[in-house]
Parts: sequence; C-alpha cells; structure tokens
Amino acid sequence: MQKITEALVRQVIQPRSQESHKGSFGRVLTIGGNQNFGGAIIMSTSAAVYSGAGLVTCATAPQNFVSLHARLPEAMVVDYQDQTMLAELIPQMDVLVIGPGLGVDATALAILKFVFTQVQLHQNLIIDGSAITLVAQERLTLPTAQIIFTPHQMEWQRLSGLALAEQTPAKNQAAQQKLAATVIVKSHRTEVYLPSAAWQNPVGSAAMATGGMGDCLTGILAGFLAQFTTQREAAILAAVYAHSQISDQLAQRQYVTLPTQIIDALPQYMARMSR
Amino acid sequence: MQKITEALVRQVIQPRSQESHKGSFGRVLTIGGNQNFGGAIIMSTSAAVYSGAGLVTCATAPQNFVSLHARLPEAMVVDYQDQTMLAELIPQMDVLVIGPGLGVDATALAILKFVFTQVQLHQNLIIDGSAITLVAQERLTLPTAQIIFTPHQMEWQRLSGLALAEQTPAKNQAAQQKLAATVIVKSHRTEVYLPSAAWQNPVGSAAMATGGMGDCLTGILAGFLAQFTTQREAAILAAVYAHSQISDQLAQRQYVTLPTQIIDALPQYMARMSR
Amino acid sequence: MQKITEALVRQVIQPRSQESHKGSFGRVLTIGGNQNFGGAIIMSTSAAVYSGAGLVTCATAPQNFVSLHARLPEAMVVDYQDQTMLAELIPQMDVLVIGPGLGVDATALAILKFVFTQVQLHQNLIIDGSAITLVAQERLTLPTAQIIFTPHQMEWQRLSGLALAEQTPAKNQAAQQKLAATVIVKSHRTEVYLPSAAWQNPVGSAAMATGGMGDCLTGILAGFLAQFTTQREAAILAAVYAHSQISDQLAQRQYVTLPTQIIDALPQYMARMSR
Amino acid sequence: MQKITEALVRQVIQPRSQESHKGSFGRVLTIGGNQNFGGAIIMSTSAAVYSGAGLVTCATAPQNFVSLHARLPEAMVVDYQDQTMLAELIPQMDVLVIGPGLGVDATALAILKFVFTQVQLHQNLIIDGSAITLVAQERLTLPTAQIIFTPHQMEWQRLSGLALAEQTPAKNQAAQQKLAATVIVKSHRTEVYLPSAAWQNPVGSAAMATGGMGDCLTGILAGFLAQFTTQREAAILAAVYAHSQISDQLAQRQYVTLPTQIIDALPQYMARMSR
Repeated sequence: MQKITEALVRQVIQPRSQESHKGSFGRVLTIGGNQNFGGAIIMSTSAAVYSGAGLVTCATAPQNFVSLHARLPEAMVVDYQDQTMLAELIPQMDVLVIGPGLGVDATALAILKFVFTQVQLHQNLIIDGSAITLVAQERLTLPTAQIIFTPHQMEWQRLSGLALAEQTPAKNQAAQQKLAATVIVKSHRTEVYLPSAAWQNPVGSAAMATGGMGDCLTGILAGFLAQFTTQREAAILAAVYAHSQISDQLAQRQYVTLPTQIIDALPQYMARMSR
Repeated sequence: MQKITEALVRQVIQPRSQESHKGSFGRVLTIGGNQNFGGAIIMSTSAAVYSGAGLVTCATAPQNFVSLHARLPEAMVVDYQDQTMLAELIPQMDVLVIGPGLGVDATALAILKFVFTQVQLHQNLIIDGSAITLVAQERLTLPTAQIIFTPHQMEWQRLSGLALAEQTPAKNQAAQQKLAATVIVKSHRTEVYLPSAAWQNPVGSAAMATGGMGDCLTGILAGFLAQFTTQREAAILAAVYAHSQISDQLAQRQYVTLPTQIIDALPQYMARMSR
Repeated sequence: MQKITEALVRQVIQPRSQESHKGSFGRVLTIGGNQNFGGAIIMSTSAAVYSGAGLVTCATAPQNFVSLHARLPEAMVVDYQDQTMLAELIPQMDVLVIGPGLGVDATALAILKFVFTQVQLHQNLIIDGSAITLVAQERLTLPTAQIIFTPHQMEWQRLSGLALAEQTPAKNQAAQQKLAATVIVKSHRTEVYLPSAAWQNPVGSAAMATGGMGDCLTGILAGFLAQFTTQREAAILAAVYAHSQISDQLAQRQYVTLPTQIIDALPQYMARMSR
Repeated sequence: MQKITEALVRQVIQPRSQESHKGSFGRVLTIGGNQNFGGAIIMSTSAAVYSGAGLVTCATAPQNFVSLHARLPEAMVVDYQDQTMLAELIPQMDVLVIGPGLGVDATALAILKFVFTQVQLHQNLIIDGSAITLVAQERLTLPTAQIIFTPHQMEWQRLSGLALAEQTPAKNQAAQQKLAATVIVKSHRTEVYLPSAAWQNPVGSAAMATGGMGDCLTGILAGFLAQFTTQREAAILAAVYAHSQISDQLAQRQYVTLPTQIIDALPQYMARMSR
C-alpha cells in the first residue's frame, strides 16, 4: 500500500487563480445534526468553510441553527426535513456530506433516502457516521454519484460485512470495488481505498482520538473536493493527510488536539502547503 | 479608471477628535438575515461595530437575536418585521444597510418596501445582495436618499440590464448615472462608480473568494460612512480598499481569509492607517 | 477637582489574601437586558466576572440566557420578572447593577420598582442607563442603599434637572448631595461626584466612543465594589480609571476599543496593578 | 497528610499509546445544568473534553443545548429528564459527573435518584455541588459505584455532619470511610481523602476564588479518570493538582483566573506534563 506524502498535499493545494470568485471554489451542502448530535454537523460545516469551500450550506435540525451561526456566520442553514428546499439546493451543489450527527432514527432514514433520490451523477457524496450505519442496516441502494464512505472500523464492518480481523488491504479493496465507491477506513493509520489503488496515511497520532475528529475530516474532504476538482483522487488523499498533519503540528504542544482547533488551523496550514 | 490608493485610505481614517462621544461616530441600522441566512447580517453588523460606528442596531428575524448577541453584544437587535419599531428607529440613523441575508420572498419584499418609505434624503442607504435582486425584479422605485448599491456582477446585470460582457466602464458609468446612486460592482477587481468618477480597487486576492465577504463589506462601508461624514466619496473608496487590504495582509499567512477574520482585524488596521 | 491617578488604582487592587474563597470577593446581581438590548447586560455581567467578583448572577429576559451562557458560563441567570427568585437572591448580594439594556417600558419600570423595594441599606446599587431615565421620568423615590448613578450627560440632565451648559462642578456636586448618592457623569473626561469630593478621570480617549462602553463600566464598578470593600470610594474611582486606562493601552494598537476587548483585558491589567 | 506533587502528575499523564482510538480514552456523561445554572454544566463538560476524555455527553435541561454547542461542538447533548435515553447511555459510560448546576428542586432530586438506580459498580461517579446537598438533605442511599464527592467546606458539613471547626484530617478521614467514597474537600488548600490515605493540594491561590471553579474541577476529574484507568487514585490526585497548577501559571499574569481559561489551557499543560 502506498503512503500519502506531504508532496502530494503540496501538489493539490495550489495558489488560487486570481481570476476567480466564490463560485470557483465550489458549493458544499452538509446534512446532519439531530437534536442530540448538533455539534457534529457544526464541526463538519466549519471545516468545509475553513478549508476554503466557496459557499457552504448546512442542512440540520432547526435547534442547531443558532449554535451554528454563533460559531460560524459564514454558513447558511436550512431545515434538513424541508424537502422543498433540499430539492432546490441539491442540484446546485458540488459536494454533499451526509451523516455527521444524523442519528439512526426514522427521521434520519427519511432524510438519507430523500437525499439519495436527489443527488446527481457528477456530485461528490460523502457518507459518514450514522448514515453509513443506515446504509448497511437498511441495505439501501446507493445513488449514482461520486461516493466516498468514511467509516471507522466498526462501521466498515457493518458496511462491508468484514469482521475487524478480516479487514486486510486485499479484502478491503475487494469490498471497495463491490461498492463502487471510495472508502476511507479510519483508524490510527487510516487507509484510503480509491478505485485505482489503496493508500495509507502515515501521519496522525493518538492526540486525535477524541470525539468529533471524523466529523472534522468530512468537512475538509468536502472543502478539498469543492476546490481541487481537476485532481479528485489526490484531493481526497490530501484531505486525509492534512487533517492528521495539522493535528501532529498542534500535538507538539498539546496532549489532545480538538477538532475545532484543527479547523482553526486550516487556513494557515493550507497557505504553507501552497508555497 | 483611477485606482484607489492606500494614501486615500490614510487621508480618510483620521485620528478621532477627543471632544467626541459615541454619537459623533454615527448610528447604523443593518437590516437582513432571514431564517436561513442569519449569518450574513451578523457579519454585516459586526463589521460596522468593529470599523468604529458609534451605535449599531440590527433588524433581523428574531431567530437570529441569540446568535448575534453571542458573537456581538455591542449591537442592539430589533425584529425586522416590527414596523412600529423601524419607523421609530430609522429617522435616528445616519446609515442603513439593507440586504445581507434578507432573501427574496414576500416578507423580504415587504420589509424592503417599508424601509424605502421611511428612509430620508440625507441618509446613506446601502442596498446589497437579495435587496438588489428585489429592486431589479420588482422594478421598485428608489427612495430619495444617498444610495449605494453593492452588486456582484450577476446582480449588476439584473439591476442595470447589462449582460456580463457588456459591463464596460463606460456602460457601467452610464447605468450608474441613470440610477443616480453609487454603484460598487464587486469582482476580483472591484469597480466603484461614484457620481463624479469611476475607480478601481487594485488590491484583494482570491483568498477573499468565500461566502459572506460581501456582507462584511457592507458593514465596513456603513462604519466608514457613519464616521467620515465630511468626505463621503472618499470614505466609500476607502472602505472598499480597506476590506481587500486587510485580506491581503491576512493572506500572507492564510489560504482563505474569512469575513469574521477580516472583521476582527479592523481595529488594528484602522489604527495603522490613522498614523 | 482632583484627578484620579494610577497610584490610587494600585492602592485599591491589592494582592488577594490566600485565606479566602469566592464568597470573600462578593456577590453581584446584574439586572437588565430586555428583548432588544440583551447585549448590554451581557457586557455588564462579563465585566463583573472578569474583574474578579466572587459570584455573579444576571437577571434578564429569558431570551438572553443562551447568548449570555454562550459567552460567559461563569455567570448564573434568572428571569428578571421572577419576583420570587429576585426576592430570594437580592438579600444575598453585595452589589446590584440595574439598568443596562433594561428599557423604559412598563416591564422595566415594574422591575426597577420591585428592586427598589428589596434592596438593603448596606448594599451597593449601581443605577445605569434606562434605569436613570426611569428614575427621573417617574420621579421615583430612591431606596436607602449605597447608590451610584452612572449617567451620561443627557441622562444627568434628566436626573439633576441641570441642562448641559449648567453642568458645572459646583452645580453637579450640589445635585449629587441632594440625591445623596455617588454620581459618575460620563463624558470624554468623566467626573465622579462622591459625597466627600469631586474627581476627574484624566485618562481615556475617543477610542472608547462606541456602544456598550457604559455597560462595561457598570460591571467593573460592581466587581471592584464587591472585592475592595474596605475602601469603597477609592474602589469607585479606581474602576472609572481602570476602564479608561485599559482602553488607552489597547488604543495604542486599535482605532476603536470595544467593550468586550476591555473585558478580556481586565485580569491581566489588574495583575499588573496589584504588583 | 501527604502533599500531592508535580512528579505524581507527570507519572499519571503518560504519552498516549499510538494503537488507540477515542474509545481508549473513555466515555464521560456529565449531568446537571438547570434553567438557571446552565453555565456550570457547560464548564464541567468542556473541562472533560479539553482534558482528553474520548467521548463526552452532557445531560442537561434542553435550554442549555444551544449555549453548550456554541462553545463546545465536541460534546453530545441529551435531555436530563429523558430516562429512556439516560438508561441507554449510562451503561456505556466510564465516568459520570452529577451535580454542577443541577439545583435542589424536585426535578433535580428525581434525576439524581434515577441516576443512582442506573449507575454500575465499576463506574466512577463524581457527585458535586447541589447533588451533594441533596444526598445529605434527603439522606439518599448511595449506589454501589466508585464514588467521588467534591464538596466545599459547607457542603462537607452537610454531608459529614462535621461542623467547619470539626473538619480535622482525622475526623474527615473517618467520615470518608463511613461514606466508602473518595472525598475532595475544597478550600484554599484542598484535601483529598482517598480510602488509602489523605492528601493535601499544595498549589493554587486566591486567583481561583471565582464562580465555576468547582465545576471545572469535576470535568478534569472526569477526563483524568476516563483516561488514566490503571492508576485511579493517582489520577484523582493529579486532577486536583493540575487544576490548581494551571491557575498558578495563569496567575503569573492574571489577577483572577477564570474556569474557562483554565479549560483552554488544559491541552498544553498536559503536553508539558507528559514529557
């Protein structure tokens, strides 16, 4: 398995063309955050904004609107149960994230199913957290889109049917091909199964082992996919690496590195990588 | 077309007279922020406060009161549908901003129309975002006031009838004169059409290409117009330049510069310019 | 008129006795913040906490609970219309602040009148903003307590009956004696009328001329009165001076100094003064 | 009585094993925060997250969800009156905190009693603030669990029956043994009564004498107990010491050190101790 390198991140994060506007850097819709897990979608949405996505909208439970805006006025909000609004918004998007804090109840399932009916072939669709569990549990048919799953090892077991001990690179790659989606299996050495090859993330540490770290990753993935459209696979790998490398840099001075701290560090990290 | 210079900004931002009080630095009312776009009016209002306006009130949907106060206790809030309150407040104002996050629905239109009936000749009225779209779409008659439009190129097309390819300096200036308002056409090289002349902003970069950047500009415009009353045209130009120059300074270390970061940097930037 | 000095501030802010607990540093109740002016009481309450008051409770409209806690989890909250709770809390207090963002409607008047029935002789009662207007307008009888008024010049006119041009030191002092309260007349050179003498604040600048600055002062006054109980008059003078001197220090690098920035700077400023 | 040392803290806070994930660092449930005291549970929960607990959920009054998320999206929230959810969550936990901002009314008592029926033998249960008062006042039977009480001296009087003057080390230790729980008696020199021995905290200062400091301690205790499971008693002592030592470090530059500032400083402090 190849290892992702900083050189690859530097190749992806290029200086921005001056003749550009916010539309040039993509539109992202994050979907999740129920009455109990609102923080997850706040972190995902924040990471998308701070990694440079052009325009970011968050579809969530209305209870989360105020906390999201108090932290992040840069994002727009919409009720994740408002199908009329979602049907209008989704076609405008370059990247969708579904799952952070979504939950696994009937409301969550209905939202997930509805999004699956609306998403389009060319769109990136990042499926995370409880949305992975729902896909596995309800044996949902995946929409035709550019799908990226971001399971941790237990969610990957549910999705692939591979028990932890069976999650070898070969079997994971086979499961990825059956899914016809990119799969990012998160662990202390995250593995990325692209259609073309499997990659391992050599950076990151146990300072990242804290709640919300995966939600943060979904936002960085969304931001990178929204901007670096000409090198989609490299953008995915770069997002995984960047997320961990920022933590490593913070961990020189911190015992635990919180997702919100990684988010705050994104603009400066990306500037360094773009030089 | 003349280029705005830092020298002009320095000429506008003068040390404050000691014999002054908050009333000396003007009253600003920002109007916008519906149930989906509350962040926009939070950023506009924050930029007005941080650029030094004396007293700032935000008229918005009540759902946004808490997030605004959580970020910015310095501002007052009022329900943007409360016509009694608006009718009482508007005559006290030096500058009004209408549009950030206002939306284009019937509520938005009713608010816009009502504000147009209340605004007075001597007041600065900054019309932004969806309010521009409404003015164009509903062919609203403009009130007699000191109007400043802040369209991006698509909104300018709606307002002026000029397709993107036709938006030449000469045609833009002609359209500006027909409107009898100042027009700030936002792009990667923003152009300012004053009644007297057209100016180009030579600073700024693609690090500004992110959601909310225009909302931030409306607040800086409001703050500058509220304070630098003896040099109104120069104040408008200085606001446009300052907004971009702060981003340029942040972009030495950041890949993207967020509106909230530009807002935070205003007091220190203005101190440097005032020396 | 004597001028307050930094030496006086240094005399007031003594190192804390080690054999102390939060009760040693006083209990403060801030009362204000209606549906439109919630930010004012957030700033007053924050300033009380950051200046070192032992325990701080904020009585405000319930709509402000969330924004207050989002900024300041250190304070407790109570509905300012809940007379049962207020009647239980007030006797425990060392200092009360009433007025920031209270408004002048019937609700505000009822709260003010109720507080006047509950406050006790030994308690400091800081009356600010709209509460001053209500006292003047409704010719309310003042309770017997250690009262401090913090009017700006227009409010002082309403309270004293002295037109702006008549507000000379001698007439102000005479009006203060009639009120039997300390009066802090805020202007670009704030004057403090103690029962014993009149003092002028020699520091501060127009960088303070921004909304909420007076709310911030009420909280510093409350914090100082709660802690420095053995030198009440000096504590009042020190609070006025500290508020302005912090702004002066920030203004070396800022064009405008916001109340929330002054609040954040309090713990470090006070450490410097205590050495 | 032995004194806790920095060496002991350094022994507890070991570099994290790389082969770990968030589950390795424990699950914490904080329970408290009624309609008036929401800030207390926000601080407790934040301290648990910033001290490195793997996954943290806060059970509180729904009115506190938004302010908690606005400050701390890393935590999950649940209605503290939702017994179905609590019954499902509690068995998954390694550490529970009950009491910060809980209050002493019937709702608080019902929650406390319910938690006592659900908690399990192996779980750490930190009982703080009003929960201590309720245990004492209602003479509640303690559940079989790893209980830690964190009373200040008045609460300890209520719980132990020992008047302040009687609270000698010997009598305190005897009372601790009768309770069969660890007791942390908070004062300017906090004492920790473990089953095995009594310890005194030699650090900390009057800069800590401010509201919410105890709430902050409960979160650090929870975070340390969740992570440092093989040395439970040392983890408790280390938490008490760390809480005060961080304040001492901040107090080199601050007159008062606020709980939220101590929380922010935790990740860097712990990194220093782990080297």
